[in-house]
Amino acid sequence: LNKIPVSLRMENPGYCTGSFDGLHHPSDDDDDEMVDIAGATLDFSTTEDDPPLSTGGYEEYSSSRAAGMNGNGPTKLVDPLEDPVPGVGTYEDFNTIDWVREKSKDRDRHREITNKSRQSTVALLHSVSDAFSGWLLMLLVGLMSGALAGGIDIAAHWLTDMKGGVCLIGFWFNHEHCCWTSNETTFQERDRCPQWQSWAELITGTSEGAFAYIVNYLMYIFWALLFSFLAVTLVRAFAPYACGSGIPEIKTILSGFIIRGYLGKWTLIIKTITLVLAVSSGLSLGKEGPLVHVACCCANILCHLFTKYRKNEAKRREVLSAAAAVGVSVAFGAPIGGVLFSLEEVSYYFPLKTLWRSFFAALVAAFTLRSINPFGNSRLVLFYVEFHAPWHLVELAPFILLGIFGGLWGALFIRANIAWCRRRKSTRLGHYPVIEVLVVAALTAVLAFPNSYTRMSGAELISELFNDCSLLDSSQLCGYKQPTNTSDTGAGNSLADRPAGKGLYTALWQLALALVFKMLITVITFGMKVPSGLFIPSMAIGAIAGRLLGVGMEQLAYYNHDWFIFKGWCSPGADCITPGLYAMVGAAACLGGVTRMTVSLVVIMFELTGGLEYIVPLMAATMTSKWVADAFGREGIYEAHIRLNGYPFLEPKEEFEHSSLTVDVMRPRRSDPALAVLTQEGMTVGEVEALVESTHYSGFPVVVSKESQRLVGFALRRDLLISIDNARKRQEGIVSASQVVFTEHAPSQAPDAPPPLRLRGIMDLSPFTVTDHTPMDITVDIFRKLGLRQCLVTHNGRLLGIITKKDILKHMAQIANRDPDSILFN
Amino acid sequence: LNKIPVSLRMENPGYCTGSFDGLHHPSDDDDDEMVDIAGATLDFSTTEDDPPLSTGGYEEYSSSRAAGMNGNGPTKLVDPLEDPVPGVGTYEDFNTIDWVREKSKDRDRHREITNKSRQSTVALLHSVSDAFSGWLLMLLVGLMSGALAGGIDIAAHWLTDMKGGVCLIGFWFNHEHCCWTSNETTFQERDRCPQWQSWAELITGTSEGAFAYIVNYLMYIFWALLFSFLAVTLVRAFAPYACGSGIPEIKTILSGFIIRGYLGKWTLIIKTITLVLAVSSGLSLGKEGPLVHVACCCANILCHLFTKYRKNEAKRREVLSAAAAVGVSVAFGAPIGGVLFSLEEVSYYFPLKTLWRSFFAALVAAFTLRSINPFGNSRLVLFYVEFHAPWHLVELAPFILLGIFGGLWGALFIRANIAWCRRRKSTRLGHYPVIEVLVVAALTAVLAFPNSYTRMSGAELISELFNDCSLLDSSQLCGYKQPTNTSDTGAGNSLADRPAGKGLYTALWQLALALVFKMLITVITFGMKVPSGLFIPSMAIGAIAGRLLGVGMEQLAYYNHDWFIFKGWCSPGADCITPGLYAMVGAAACLGGVTRMTVSLVVIMFELTGGLEYIVPLMAATMTSKWVADAFGREGIYEAHIRLNGYPFLEPKEEFEHSSLTVDVMRPRRSDPALAVLTQEGMTVGEVEALVESTHYSGFPVVVSKESQRLVGFALRRDLLISIDNARKRQEGIVSASQVVFTEHAPSQAPDAPPPLRLRGIMDLSPFTVTDHTPMDITVDIFRKLGLRQCLVTHNGRLLGIITKKDILKHMAQIANRDPDSILFN
Repeated sequence: LNKIPVSLRMENPGYCTGSFDGLHHPSDDDDDEMVDIAGATLDFSTTEDDPPLSTGGYEEYSSSRAAGMNGNGPTKLVDPLEDPVPGVGTYEDFNTIDWVREKSKDRDRHREITNKSRQSTVALLHSVSDAFSGWLLMLLVGLMSGALAGGIDIAAHWLTDMKGGVCLIGFWFNHEHCCWTSNETTFQERDRCPQWQSWAELITGTSEGAFAYIVNYLMYIFWALLFSFLAVTLVRAFAPYACGSGIPEIKTILSGFIIRGYLGKWTLIIKTITLVLAVSSGLSLGKEGPLVHVACCCANILCHLFTKYRKNEAKRREVLSAAAAVGVSVAFGAPIGGVLFSLEEVSYYFPLKTLWRSFFAALVAAFTLRSINPFGNSRLVLFYVEFHAPWHLVELAPFILLGIFGGLWGALFIRANIAWCRRRKSTRLGHYPVIEVLVVAALTAVLAFPNSYTRMSGAELISELFNDCSLLDSSQLCGYKQPTNTSDTGAGNSLADRPAGKGLYTALWQLALALVFKMLITVITFGMKVPSGLFIPSMAIGAIAGRLLGVGMEQLAYYNHDWFIFKGWCSPGADCITPGLYAMVGAAACLGGVTRMTVSLVVIMFELTGGLEYIVPLMAATMTSKWVADAFGREGIYEAHIRLNGYPFLEPKEEFEHSSLTVDVMRPRRSDPALAVLTQEGMTVGEVEALVESTHYSGFPVVVSKESQRLVGFALRRDLLISIDNARKRQEGIVSASQVVFTEHAPSQAPDAPPPLRLRGIMDLSPFTVTDHTPMDITVDIFRKLGLRQCLVTHNGRLLGIITKKDILKHMAQIANRDPDSILFN
Repeated sequence: LNKIPVSLRMENPGYCTGSFDGLHHPSDDDDDEMVDIAGATLDFSTTEDDPPLSTGGYEEYSSSRAAGMNGNGPTKLVDPLEDPVPGVGTYEDFNTIDWVREKSKDRDRHREITNKSRQSTVALLHSVSDAFSGWLLMLLVGLMSGALAGGIDIAAHWLTDMKGGVCLIGFWFNHEHCCWTSNETTFQERDRCPQWQSWAELITGTSEGAFAYIVNYLMYIFWALLFSFLAVTLVRAFAPYACGSGIPEIKTILSGFIIRGYLGKWTLIIKTITLVLAVSSGLSLGKEGPLVHVACCCANILCHLFTKYRKNEAKRREVLSAAAAVGVSVAFGAPIGGVLFSLEEVSYYFPLKTLWRSFFAALVAAFTLRSINPFGNSRLVLFYVEFHAPWHLVELAPFILLGIFGGLWGALFIRANIAWCRRRKSTRLGHYPVIEVLVVAALTAVLAFPNSYTRMSGAELISELFNDCSLLDSSQLCGYKQPTNTSDTGAGNSLADRPAGKGLYTALWQLALALVFKMLITVITFGMKVPSGLFIPSMAIGAIAGRLLGVGMEQLAYYNHDWFIFKGWCSPGADCITPGLYAMVGAAACLGGVTRMTVSLVVIMFELTGGLEYIVPLMAATMTSKWVADAFGREGIYEAHIRLNGYPFLEPKEEFEHSSLTVDVMRPRRSDPALAVLTQEGMTVGEVEALVESTHYSGFPVVVSKESQRLVGFALRRDLLISIDNARKRQEGIVSASQVVFTEHAPSQAPDAPPPLRLRGIMDLSPFTVTDHTPMDITVDIFRKLGLRQCLVTHNGRLLGIITKKDILKHMAQIANRDPDSILFN
């Protein structure tokens, strides 16, 4: 079922930027089944998912259509292909869809249902249910994704705590739940409740001393290695597509590319499990990006329940766009930000109807997650904050500084990560993914344990850094010197400014070390063969930098109240600088630098804080960060990975700057042989087959005659092969000498000639054309906006050549002085 | 300067759905100046704003280009039109722009600047400043619109209070400011401070008794009549384009239509002033829609400061899209909602770069408005609310009921309003706009005064209805019976449920009357010749209905705590139902029904309340409302007005459902004479002029020869006329017998023939073509996505016909059984 040709898989060195060739697969059969699209168990396996060129699957085709096909002469004939041959109009793996054809197909379907609905009540009901199926699907996607996200949160929380100790009441409780029933009153005491025992306590009976520390250290490393080993082994064995963040591939899929199995059930199951393991192993990665992949898998699988979405690649991509919004909605508890993320970052075709539905799905998912309440505080994420202190205009300067830091880090990270991934692909490193993961996990665990800020999980770290110090806060970050008389500090929860104490200085040193560690380890972690998101590590780096700067500013203000820049708004005893806000701004800046998100990032952060007040600092930092990072290279990390993997992705955001004309980019080039064309009559089946065999083009223009080169239509290679194959099997009298006819009326033939093969039905009668003088920027625009796969080029009404998406991408690569052969797929 | 041909103005019966023909203009010259685009005083009047066919304006054209034009023979010549003739590439009033050409022009410009920037530092600085000019422009638009909105708020507040009385300290204080310094403590007492005197107090010396009431009543009517008279007179005399909400026209302009002066400085000034007057006059209209128009005027005027935006219609529309977001941002204090409104409701071409910039501009505007602080509470709008009580799942039923009400009202309102506007256009009613406004204002004032809920302004009414009752609230709406023992009512500010008292029953009656009154009066108000927005009246109607239902539910729950639907969540003494939330949901539902907004509406409401909690009720109501309203007709009020006025607007949201082919829609029809074409050589100047004169087409395809009908390019009528006119004046030897040549190389001619006129430069070498078999849905898609004005139709490589936006709109009108001639412009 759905075997991907081995050659194609071999050709694809892309996934998780390592080549799979070197991997030893436990069972080749398993592997093939696993890269299957999810349909099988849902009983749709006999539909379009079948590669039509393989054996079998033709049984459904009613041969009754063969009748009435043999008439000759000038009378208009019933087109034998009015009912499509199974397989015609489907796509091969690693190919690009034709958006215009898919959307047109859907409109035809809709028109038919609407017309029928006037005839009977049943049809009317069918029409209504068809109209509402989109909403139902969105509801299901929201529910399923929200539930999965909740499950992942709970499981990851539990496993992360497992690295530190175990609950005596039941091993399935995490630290917090374990101490829930404890009757200690303060938070610190509750954290040390007797029901929860660290590994040292359990093994050596004491939690103090060097030996206990070593036992805890070793247990921490042991669990980290175990989790990461499980994660990478599961990915390798069952779903290689489950690795990485998935966002580059989803962007490519949404732009119209087909990767069978990338959003299948195996990927979903394995990604969900290994995501929990990878996050718990303490590696420097997050679950936010992969949650988008998980949501898209849910959507793709649920699409199989509705014919409308199962059978149409364009409609399915609408649902996937909404699913991307759902993923971010549950990852950050930000439904509006999720929708904007989908719109800004991942989607290609995003009609307004999808906007509304995405929003619905994102809300459903957020409320499902909230009703699961994974963090026990009715918040959707760990790092939700509420600030109350206002900020001052002067503070924009440090915020912009953070923006510059974020931009520089983003540019640096992308270069370093891409260089490392390229090295992984080209050297023997890529052949040992399990060892790589284990080494990195061991390194991470060994270095992370001694520092409490790296030992805790990324989300916890961010939560701690975002948090504002209250008077009772026990955190080291709030280790200010106690004021001598408390009357100064006002009534509220927030602290007035105070000098840093010893605890805070220790914390700052640890944070600085954590910053360096995180920066280095994230570069080699992203791209390994485990599910790995970038959001959390990027945000953590920015939050550390921001908190450091924030505390610095705070102390500066404390010791220099009389400086003119602090005068008037930061008098002694006032709570004028919020280090938590700096952490948040820094997090946004770094995330912006790495991903180049703008509006969606600001809105996500806005939804995390809930105050319009803080949008301006966030915006200033994000804008600066994007400008600085763009100065070093315009690609975000996802686009860089798309390019590294050679996917055929036409970036919708970048303008085509070069002044070439279409004639410079199209094929055939001037020195090449003429374009391979079919004529609308006069060619035999044998000639057509020979032409198709001798070339590797995926489609052929049909012209009136070779002399006039007047364009009639366009026929796809795949459709031609399927139709001829089908006709030879089922249609009487079709031999190699039969004429192939693309005209409406069959030409008159010698009476003893074999009956002609009519193929007008598979021909696209409305191929897109541009003239050879069209500037390439316009042509690129047409490709992007209409979602074309190819376009024909004419000169003064004569067919001159053809231009495909791959040609454009190669041309762009050439202009940018890159290897044009890095574009692998069509 | 910039005279609009009178015939064109007469042809345009659209604005504010009345014909201008009947209006007596005090000075025709004034009128023409007034419909001028804003450039004049900014000293750009000699640029493209000049209709190139009028006298003058040609002086800038350097005749040096004429040199080297007379060479004959097969050598490739310098194109004489490389530097464009002034006027080539501009548009006439009431015409549609060609998006592809405009965008291509901008890319050329950008490319040139980028290339130059490598050569010198000055050019590099120019390139940087060019890149940042967009941001600077956005900043200016935000600042200017925010400031104007603040001014409008303050002025309208003052004038509205003026209808009731006057401040003795200074007449320029409004009621609230006047009593600011008063030392009464409670709010009620402060409202009756001695510095503020009602007209009755001032005139009769007493504020009690029937006579005082009558004096106040008469003064109220007097001011209402005065304000509305001033408003309509100013609009009539100085800026007829200032009337209405402006959103239908802005939608059309953003889709590529040109209406000179619609966004000019006169419109801005007059609209700002008359908006204040119209709102203060007490008419049932709001300032929110017109604020969008005001912001767009600001943007258009500021565009003249930057060459990049002044000279390019497509780039300018990007700025206008952002300005629409700014308008909503200041109208509702909702920057994110504003951006989504622009995206969902008004924009046509909205690239991601615009999204980010719109967001920036919307934020700047919101913060400018906040720093002006027109309401004195650091909120951007009067009706900001904060709810704290949760809602229960059972309440979704009444929310959906409100959605149904909103949908029904929306559908009914659109029908009634359009019928009324059509009557205004077709009968003598439209000839007396001043009398109409005065009659409606008098009617409104007479009926509104006795009822306190209609006497207050729309925004105040909404604010009061949204508001939750607190214990100390003196509003009639909070006239519950006092509980006998206060220990039941909990500690918080919010009331536990209580039986309705006499005050509340009175309020309910008044609200019910206000509902009927608002419903009737709004239908005849919207479309009059004063600036009038629909948001506030629609929201007010919904809020009244919602509040009524909310109080009903509350009382039902109070008297039936034991019903099973209330059990478990609404026990006695609990504060279970928030009537203010119902008002808010009702407002969203009605606004949704009228405008068919979805995501943006929910996000605007979300930003008004600031709680994610209440999105679900809002979403349920908005969704229901849209579905119900769509069942009666898919057009929102703005689309209905666009259609009424015959603008060439191709709705981007609706799918083209019919199964026609392009060949059925294109021209010439089967019975028509053949398409008028130019040949690339062989025609003389005289022949071309005769062809252009004898037809009314706005462009002509250029073919190789009439026999082959092979397409070479497309030349616009306007460009042809300008170029021939120009050549006759400036180029030596161009006579009627001169050959017109569109080829690259001039053909050999007889030695005594006059020199040929080369027009390859004005020919579009990349005209868009579709085949005659292309389904219309695909063709419509191409028109929408690429922003085409016309497209050529070919059959087997031969030119067959042409299809324009107007043809498509006429075809659509025909399918919908409407008069195809209702489409007025091209």
